[in-house]
Amino acid sequence: MIKKRLYTPGPTPVPEQIMLTMAEPMIHHRHPEFQEILTSVNENLKYLFQTDNGVMTLTSSGTGAMEASVANILSKGDTAVYVNGGKFGERWGEILQAYGLNAVEIVTEWGIPVPPDRVVDEIKKNPDTKAVFLTHSETSTGTATDIKSIADAVHKYNNDIVVVVDGITSVGAMESRMDEWDLDIVVTGSQKGLMIPPGISHIALSERAWKRAEKSDLPNYYFDLKAAKKALDKNDTPWTPAVTLFIGLEKALEMLREEGIENVWARHQKLADAIRSGCKALGLKLLSSSPSNALTAVYVPEGVEFKKFNSIIKQKYGITVAGGQGHLKGKIFRISHLGYYDELDMMTMMAALERTLAEVGADIQMGAGLTAAQEIFVK
Amino acid sequence: MIKKRLYTPGPTPVPEQIMLTMAEPMIHHRHPEFQEILTSVNENLKYLFQTDNGVMTLTSSGTGAMEASVANILSKGDTAVYVNGGKFGERWGEILQAYGLNAVEIVTEWGIPVPPDRVVDEIKKNPDTKAVFLTHSETSTGTATDIKSIADAVHKYNNDIVVVVDGITSVGAMESRMDEWDLDIVVTGSQKGLMIPPGISHIALSERAWKRAEKSDLPNYYFDLKAAKKALDKNDTPWTPAVTLFIGLEKALEMLREEGIENVWARHQKLADAIRSGCKALGLKLLSSSPSNALTAVYVPEGVEFKKFNSIIKQKYGITVAGGQGHLKGKIFRISHLGYYDELDMMTMMAALERTLAEVGADIQMGAGLTAAQEIFVK
Repeated sequence: MIKKRLYTPGPTPVPEQIMLTMAEPMIHHRHPEFQEILTSVNENLKYLFQTDNGVMTLTSSGTGAMEASVANILSKGDTAVYVNGGKFGERWGEILQAYGLNAVEIVTEWGIPVPPDRVVDEIKKNPDTKAVFLTHSETSTGTATDIKSIADAVHKYNNDIVVVVDGITSVGAMESRMDEWDLDIVVTGSQKGLMIPPGISHIALSERAWKRAEKSDLPNYYFDLKAAKKALDKNDTPWTPAVTLFIGLEKALEMLREEGIENVWARHQKLADAIRSGCKALGLKLLSSSPSNALTAVYVPEGVEFKKFNSIIKQKYGITVAGGQGHLKGKIFRISHLGYYDELDMMTMMAALERTLAEVGADIQMGAGLTAAQEIFVK
Repeated sequence: MIKKRLYTPGPTPVPEQIMLTMAEPMIHHRHPEFQEILTSVNENLKYLFQTDNGVMTLTSSGTGAMEASVANILSKGDTAVYVNGGKFGERWGEILQAYGLNAVEIVTEWGIPVPPDRVVDEIKKNPDTKAVFLTHSETSTGTATDIKSIADAVHKYNNDIVVVVDGITSVGAMESRMDEWDLDIVVTGSQKGLMIPPGISHIALSERAWKRAEKSDLPNYYFDLKAAKKALDKNDTPWTPAVTLFIGLEKALEMLREEGIENVWARHQKLADAIRSGCKALGLKLLSSSPSNALTAVYVPEGVEFKKFNSIIKQKYGITVAGGQGHLKGKIFRISHLGYYDELDMMTMMAALERTLAEVGADIQMGAGLTAAQEIFVK
């Protein structure tokens, strides 16, 4: 018997009770039974985002909401600064370029977050900058960026600049306070901290962002956020929504609200600490200098072939982890602690990790990772 | 006990076995277990579309695939003709206008399809026309358009013009043969003939359409069909797909293939015939002069208030039908026979319809609708 367990940073495991609720008979999205779901979802998303702004839910994966941020805010010829510290930071640049905008890139080494000064310096060099595009938790490297300090520094320098945050693996995992931190756009996806399957994404805009949206002249239709906001205000959606995912979302948000957002963040912190402590005790090297609480990126030990490691942990132990992307392919593996995980899930992971590493010939002390992880939880 | 039954033209009822398969533990979309699903889905979608072209699946509702048709094919300043015979034909115009294109409208009365000549005449008046946008089955009126004859007439007049078909409520319900009929783009959605929940859409392009796509200069990213095609050719998706819906899609396509596409079309024809025959026997007036086999739009009898009718059929009999849209709001109701319905489902519907009509004071002969429907099935 091989039990299958998913430890990838999206999709993340979905609670069984949510899966079964989503399997209930189909309902129609323009009828009262769906409007009740929307009422609950829209209220609890504001709590999740820590904002009084309405949070719109789009039927698309997170990339769609990222594109909506660009296509609704900027205008032809606009300059925008983006930080590329991994595959998802790079994506901001690709979207900006797809719309023919003047995309100013700040490259950081993968695993090292951008310091606020560097963002402000780049804006100074490009005084026409209308928006800054950031990644709160870079999923390709497991790196957290201090978006609070960046938003603060940017707005102090020029209060008209819109700060856009890819919160796809951070919302519901790491402290993120849209209003208090003065973030202008926050985007997330359903298959991450929200613990439901992929297929919907969420986006909220500050007053500053909506003002800029008024002037935007880039073409869009499906991702027209003005249409989405108008529908939201009527407790509706502009297009046919992914009904079953909204049903799951309602339940997931209720779970998060019941736990309390600060407790959710603290849980992720503890799970991340335990995995990192366990990995270090096994002599493994972590990639990031500023690790995200959503996932931990770990270098494959020297002399070990990733493919062999991955094949054993997957085939023999039923565990799916994520590999490296881009130039880190084959060099790292990524363990998720994002979403529906508890402390014992981390022990399960650590147990499989120790056994797999031993079987691929890594020089580790069996039990050291488990003991170190356990100590984090019981201290 | 009130059993709930959905008779709306999208979402349509989802087979229970598909709902439960979608509720299985989450899998990751870049791993072999998902690639197996893609292999099956991509092969069977070609069968469904009756095409050798690859069919791309986007994580969006049908409107997203409609926008992709426009944004990937046309270029700035291009002229396109579209037929507006209802809410979804109108949508083609809205999308074309959102991209600043020269959108030439052909308006037809709701319920009456456009004749091929009229499309060609409009092209003659606008010799720069690059594409024609049609609606095979207009869901707001339940009207079928003869896209085969239109595609034929358009291509005979000018073989470079791209014929784009919204097949959202026709694919999997009405005869539609992409290659044989020389259709250039066909679009559909998941929550219609495909019998799964909303959240994904499907689009295929002919060689003629791909040639035009090479020249297109409109901005897009999430809906970039070149990226989608590149991913499709590697049995992959460009962005995170709606995993559970793909799992459902695999099962639904297997069911359709097992039944045989001609049999699926014939089943819809028979269900539609029975509903129409039953309605007529009750003295009801149908809206469309060319009814679609996906749904039947029926005028609310004189003296009957739609709200009261709808409240009884929904609250007392558990049946959800669709009302009218636009200027037909309150004037018609729409009965779906699209997707996972069999002959007995139509009898259930007819039984509830007769009782509801009697209860709102319509002058009908109880049993007449049932008898007429039954005759269609047993003849």
